[in-house]
Amino acid sequence: MNDQQAMQAALEEARKGLAEGGIPIGSVLVKDGQIIGRGHNRRVQQNSVVLHAEMDCLENAGRLTAADYRDCTLYSTLSPCDMCSGAALLYGIPRVVIGENVTFMGAEAHMRERGVSLTVLNDAECIELMRSFIADQPTLWNEDIGV
Amino acid sequence: MNDQQAMQAALEEARKGLAEGGIPIGSVLVKDGQIIGRGHNRRVQQNSVVLHAEMDCLENAGRLTAADYRDCTLYSTLSPCDMCSGAALLYGIPRVVIGENVTFMGAEAHMRERGVSLTVLNDAECIELMRSFIADQPTLWNEDIGV
Repeated sequence: MNDQQAMQAALEEARKGLAEGGIPIGSVLVKDGQIIGRGHNRRVQQNSVVLHAEMDCLENAGRLTAADYRDCTLYSTLSPCDMCSGAALLYGIPRVVIGENVTFMGAEAHMRERGVSLTVLNDAECIELMRSFIADQPTLWNEDIGV
Repeated sequence: MNDQQAMQAALEEARKGLAEGGIPIGSVLVKDGQIIGRGHNRRVQQNSVVLHAEMDCLENAGRLTAADYRDCTLYSTLSPCDMCSGAALLYGIPRVVIGENVTFMGAEAHMRERGVSLTVLNDAECIELMRSFIADQPTLWNEDIGV
Protein backbone atom coordinates (compact mmCIF):
# COMPACT_ATOMS: atom_id res chain seq x y z
CA MET A 1 0.00 0.00 0.00
CA ASN A 2 1.53 3.33 -1.01
CA ASP A 3 0.92 6.77 0.52
CA GLN A 4 -1.75 7.67 -2.03
CA GLN A 5 -3.69 4.49 -1.35
CA ALA A 6 -3.49 4.92 2.41
CA MET A 7 -4.62 8.54 2.06
CA GLN A 8 -7.60 7.37 0.00
CA ALA A 9 -8.57 5.14 2.93
CA ALA A 10 -8.24 8.12 5.28
CA LEU A 11 -10.41 10.15 2.89
CA GLU A 12 -13.07 7.41 2.99
CA GLU A 13 -13.09 7.81 6.76
CA ALA A 14 -13.42 11.58 6.41
CA ARG A 15 -16.39 11.17 4.07
CA LYS A 16 -18.01 8.70 6.48
CA GLY A 17 -17.72 11.34 9.16
CA LEU A 18 -19.33 13.95 6.92
CA ALA A 19 -22.18 11.58 6.06
CA GLU A 20 -22.80 11.14 9.80
CA GLY A 21 -23.09 14.91 10.21
CA GLY A 22 -19.61 15.14 11.64
CA ILE A 23 -16.34 16.90 10.93
CA PRO A 24 -14.77 15.41 7.77
CA ILE A 25 -11.32 14.39 8.93
CA GLY A 26 -10.11 10.82 8.61
CA SER A 27 -7.08 8.82 9.59
CA VAL A 28 -5.54 5.40 9.16
CA LEU A 29 -2.60 3.66 10.83
CA VAL A 30 -0.46 1.49 8.57
CA LYS A 31 2.03 -1.18 9.66
CA ASP A 32 3.97 -3.37 7.23
CA GLY A 33 1.79 -2.18 4.36
CA GLN A 34 -1.48 -3.08 6.11
CA ILE A 35 -4.09 -0.79 7.63
CA ILE A 36 -4.30 -1.77 11.31
CA GLY A 37 -6.55 1.08 12.48
CA ARG A 38 -9.01 3.57 10.99
CA GLY A 39 -10.96 6.42 12.44
CA HIS A 40 -12.62 9.75 11.96
CA ASN A 41 -13.45 12.78 14.02
CA ARG A 42 -16.28 12.00 16.51
CA ARG A 43 -16.97 15.42 18.03
CA VAL A 44 -20.55 15.57 16.80
CA GLN A 45 -21.35 11.85 16.73
CA GLN A 46 -20.13 11.09 20.28
CA ASN A 47 -19.89 14.60 21.71
CA SER A 48 -16.22 13.79 22.05
CA VAL A 49 -13.54 16.40 22.67
CA VAL A 50 -10.70 13.89 22.47
CA LEU A 51 -11.65 11.78 19.44
CA HIS A 52 -10.08 13.75 16.66
CA ALA A 53 -9.59 11.52 13.62
CA GLU A 54 -6.05 10.49 14.56
CA MET A 55 -7.06 9.70 18.14
CA ASP A 56 -10.05 7.66 17.01
CA CYS A 57 -7.75 5.78 14.64
CA LEU A 58 -5.17 5.06 17.36
CA GLU A 59 -7.96 3.99 19.72
CA ASN A 60 -9.40 1.63 17.12
CA ALA A 61 -5.95 0.16 16.42
CA GLY A 62 -5.96 -1.00 20.04
CA ARG A 63 -3.14 -1.52 22.52
CA LEU A 64 0.12 -1.98 20.64
CA THR A 65 3.67 -2.43 21.83
CA ALA A 66 6.20 0.37 21.47
CA ALA A 67 7.99 -1.84 18.91
CA ASP A 68 4.78 -2.03 16.85
CA TYR A 69 4.27 1.74 16.86
CA ARG A 70 7.84 2.19 15.65
CA ASP A 71 6.89 0.31 12.47
CA CYS A 72 3.81 2.44 11.84
CA THR A 73 2.92 5.38 9.65
CA LEU A 74 -0.02 7.56 10.68
CA TYR A 75 -2.07 9.10 7.86
CA SER A 76 -4.41 12.00 8.42
CA THR A 77 -6.39 14.00 5.89
CA LEU A 78 -5.51 17.18 7.85
CA SER A 79 -2.38 18.49 9.56
CA PRO A 80 -2.46 17.04 13.12
CA CYS A 81 -3.24 19.48 15.93
CA ASP A 82 -1.23 19.80 19.15
CA MET A 83 -3.13 16.92 20.79
CA CYS A 84 -2.84 14.48 17.89
CA SER A 85 0.79 15.38 17.25
CA GLY A 86 1.40 14.77 20.94
CA ALA A 87 -0.19 11.33 20.64
CA ALA A 88 2.12 10.47 17.74
CA LEU A 89 5.10 11.62 19.84
CA LEU A 90 3.93 9.71 22.93
CA TYR A 91 3.83 6.46 21.02
CA GLY A 92 6.97 7.09 19.00
CA ILE A 93 5.30 6.86 15.60
CA PRO A 94 8.20 7.72 13.30
CA ARG A 95 6.31 8.94 10.21
CA VAL A 96 3.17 10.97 9.61
CA VAL A 97 1.63 11.58 6.20
CA ILE A 98 -0.62 14.63 6.01
CA GLY A 99 -3.35 15.11 3.42
CA GLU A 100 -3.18 18.86 3.59
CA ASN A 101 -2.01 21.77 5.75
CA VAL A 102 -3.59 24.57 3.71
CA THR A 103 -6.82 24.99 5.69
CA PHE A 104 -5.18 24.26 9.07
CA MET A 105 -1.56 24.04 10.17
CA GLY A 106 -1.05 21.79 13.15
CA ALA A 107 2.04 21.08 15.23
CA GLU A 108 4.23 20.06 12.30
CA ALA A 109 7.25 22.06 13.45
CA HIS A 110 7.09 20.42 16.87
CA MET A 111 6.89 16.92 15.39
CA ARG A 112 9.82 17.66 13.05
CA GLU A 113 11.93 18.97 15.95
CA ARG A 114 11.30 15.69 17.71
CA GLY A 115 12.44 13.66 14.73
CA VAL A 116 9.14 12.62 13.17
CA SER A 117 9.35 12.30 9.39
CA LEU A 118 6.50 14.26 7.77
CA THR A 119 5.15 14.05 4.25
CA VAL A 120 2.62 16.67 3.21
CA LEU A 121 0.62 15.70 0.13
CA ASN A 122 -1.58 18.80 -0.15
CA ASP A 123 -4.14 16.63 -1.88
CA ALA A 124 -6.83 18.58 -3.73
CA GLU A 125 -9.67 16.44 -2.41
CA CYS A 126 -8.53 16.79 1.21
CA ILE A 127 -8.35 20.57 0.78
CA GLU A 128 -11.75 20.84 -0.87
CA LEU A 129 -13.42 18.69 1.81
CA MET A 130 -12.19 20.98 4.59
CA ARG A 131 -12.74 24.24 2.66
CA SER A 132 -16.32 23.33 2.04
CA PHE A 133 -16.88 22.14 5.63
CA ILE A 134 -15.29 25.22 7.21
CA ALA A 135 -17.41 27.51 5.01
CA ASP A 136 -20.56 25.59 6.02
CA GLN A 137 -19.88 25.20 9.73
CA PRO A 138 -17.32 27.73 10.98
CA THR A 139 -18.51 27.59 14.59
CA LEU A 140 -18.25 23.82 14.83
CA TRP A 141 -14.83 23.93 13.19
CA ASN A 142 -13.56 26.56 15.61
CA GLU A 143 -14.76 24.47 18.54
CA ASP A 144 -12.76 21.52 17.22
CA ILE A 145 -9.53 23.51 17.18
CA GLY A 146 -10.12 25.38 20.43
CA VAL A 147 -10.74 28.78 18.85
CA MET B 1 -11.34 25.29 46.08
CA ASN B 2 -7.57 25.67 46.37
CA ASP B 3 -4.87 23.69 44.57
CA GLN B 4 -4.46 21.21 47.42
CA GLN B 5 -8.17 20.46 47.50
CA ALA B 6 -8.38 20.02 43.74
CA MET B 7 -5.33 17.73 43.82
CA GLN B 8 -7.04 15.65 46.53
CA ALA B 9 -9.95 15.18 44.13
CA ALA B 10 -7.50 14.13 41.39
CA LEU B 11 -5.91 11.69 43.87
CA GLU B 12 -9.35 10.20 44.59
CA GLU B 13 -9.67 9.56 40.86
CA ALA B 14 -6.21 7.95 40.79
CA ARG B 15 -7.17 5.65 43.68
CA LYS B 16 -10.42 4.73 41.92
CA GLY B 17 -8.37 3.71 38.91
CA LEU B 18 -6.08 1.57 41.07
CA ALA B 19 -9.07 -0.11 42.72
CA GLU B 20 -10.36 -0.99 39.24
CA GLY B 21 -7.04 -2.67 38.42
CA GLY B 22 -5.93 0.32 36.36
CA ILE B 23 -3.08 2.80 36.25
CA PRO B 24 -3.37 5.18 39.22
CA ILE B 25 -3.38 8.59 37.61
CA GLY B 26 -6.23 11.02 38.16
CA SER B 27 -7.24 14.41 36.90
CA VAL B 28 -9.83 17.12 37.47
CA LEU B 29 -10.76 20.24 35.52
CA VAL B 30 -11.67 23.29 37.61
CA LYS B 31 -13.51 26.42 36.44
CA ASP B 32 -14.45 29.27 38.73
CA GLY B 33 -13.56 27.19 41.77
CA GLN B 34 -15.79 24.26 40.77
CA ILE B 35 -14.81 20.86 39.46
CA ILE B 36 -16.46 20.53 36.05
CA GLY B 37 -14.76 17.30 34.94
CA ARG B 38 -13.00 14.33 36.55
CA GLY B 39 -11.28 11.33 35.12
CA HIS B 40 -8.66 8.66 35.47
CA ASN B 41 -6.51 6.54 33.22
CA ARG B 42 -8.61 3.89 31.41
CA ARG B 43 -5.96 1.84 29.61
CA VAL B 44 -6.78 -1.36 31.45
CA GLN B 45 -10.47 -0.79 32.13
CA GLN B 46 -11.42 0.16 28.55
CA ASN B 47 -8.35 -1.04 26.66
CA SER B 48 -7.94 2.62 25.76
CA VAL B 49 -4.76 4.08 24.35
CA VAL B 50 -6.09 7.64 24.36
CA LEU B 51 -7.82 7.89 27.74
CA HIS B 52 -4.96 8.97 29.93
CA ALA B 53 -6.32 10.61 33.07
CA GLU B 54 -6.28 14.15 31.65
CA MET B 55 -7.98 13.03 28.43
CA ASP B 56 -10.67 11.14 30.34
CA CYS B 57 -11.20 14.24 32.47
CA LEU B 58 -11.52 16.54 29.44
CA GLU B 59 -13.86 14.04 27.78
CA ASN B 60 -16.05 13.88 30.88
CA ALA B 61 -16.15 17.69 31.13
CA GLY B 62 -17.87 17.64 27.75
CA ARG B 63 -17.87 20.11 24.87
CA LEU B 64 -16.88 23.53 26.19
CA THR B 65 -16.33 26.83 24.42
CA ALA B 66 -12.83 28.23 23.95
CA ALA B 67 -13.82 30.99 26.41
CA ASP B 68 -14.70 28.35 29.03
CA TYR B 69 -11.38 26.54 28.64
CA ARG B 70 -9.56 29.84 29.10
CA ASP B 71 -11.03 30.03 32.62
CA CYS B 72 -9.96 26.50 33.53
CA THR B 73 -7.14 24.90 35.45
CA LEU B 74 -6.28 21.28 34.71
CA TYR B 75 -5.03 19.18 37.62
CA SER B 76 -3.21 15.91 37.16
CA THR B 77 -1.57 13.68 39.74
CA LEU B 78 1.32 13.12 37.27
CA SER B 79 3.26 15.33 34.86
CA PRO B 80 1.24 15.33 31.57
CA CYS B 81 2.75 13.37 28.68
CA ASP B 82 3.11 14.72 25.13
CA MET B 83 -0.48 13.79 24.24
CA CYS B 84 -2.12 15.28 27.32
CA SER B 85 0.04 18.40 27.18
CA GLY B 86 -0.99 18.73 23.55
CA ALA B 87 -4.65 18.52 24.54
CA ALA B 88 -4.16 21.32 27.07
CA LEU B 89 -2.49 23.39 24.34
CA LEU B 90 -5.20 22.61 21.77
CA TYR B 91 -7.90 23.92 24.07
CA GLY B 92 -5.91 26.85 25.40
CA ILE B 93 -6.07 25.81 29.04
CA PRO B 94 -3.89 28.48 30.66
CA ARG B 95 -2.85 26.69 33.85
CA VAL B 96 -1.88 23.13 34.74
CA VAL B 97 -1.21 21.92 38.28
CA ILE B 98 0.92 18.79 38.50
CA GLY B 99 0.90 16.40 41.45
CA GLU B 100 4.43 15.20 40.79
CA ASN B 101 7.11 14.98 38.11
CA VAL B 102 9.55 12.79 40.03
CA THR B 103 8.52 9.40 38.63
CA PHE B 104 7.78 10.74 35.12
CA MET B 105 8.56 14.04 33.42
CA GLY B 106 6.10 14.95 30.70
CA ALA B 107 6.09 17.80 28.21
CA GLU B 108 6.40 20.55 30.80
CA ALA B 109 9.05 22.50 28.87
CA HIS B 110 6.85 22.50 25.77
CA MET B 111 3.80 23.74 27.68
CA ARG B 112 5.87 26.49 29.35
CA GLU B 113 7.28 27.62 25.99
CA ARG B 114 3.71 27.97 24.77
CA GLY B 115 2.75 30.13 27.73
CA VAL B 116 0.99 27.63 29.99
CA SER B 117 1.45 28.42 33.68
CA LEU B 118 2.60 25.30 35.54
CA THR B 119 2.59 24.56 39.24
CA VAL B 120 4.37 21.41 40.39
CA LEU B 121 3.37 20.28 43.88
CA ASN B 122 5.56 17.18 44.15
CA ASP B 123 3.02 15.80 46.58
CA ALA B 124 4.30 12.83 48.61
CA GLU B 125 1.11 10.80 48.11
CA CYS B 126 1.17 11.28 44.32
CA ILE B 127 4.81 10.17 44.23
CA GLU B 128 4.22 7.12 46.44
CA LEU B 129 1.19 6.01 44.39
CA MET B 130 3.22 5.99 41.17
CA ARG B 131 6.40 4.55 42.73
CA SER B 132 4.49 1.63 44.09
CA PHE B 133 2.55 1.10 40.84
CA ILE B 134 5.66 1.27 38.63
CA ALA B 135 7.46 -1.24 40.87
CA ASP B 136 4.46 -3.59 40.69
CA GLN B 137 3.65 -3.28 36.99
CA PRO B 138 6.62 -1.96 35.01
CA THR B 139 5.45 -3.47 31.69
CA LEU B 140 1.99 -1.92 31.90
CA TRP B 141 3.52 1.40 32.88
CA ASN B 142 5.95 1.35 29.96
CA GLU B 143 3.07 0.62 27.59
CA ASP B 144 1.23 3.67 28.87
CA ILE B 145 4.16 5.96 28.10
CA GLY B 146 5.10 4.36 24.78
CA VAL B 147 8.33 2.75 25.99
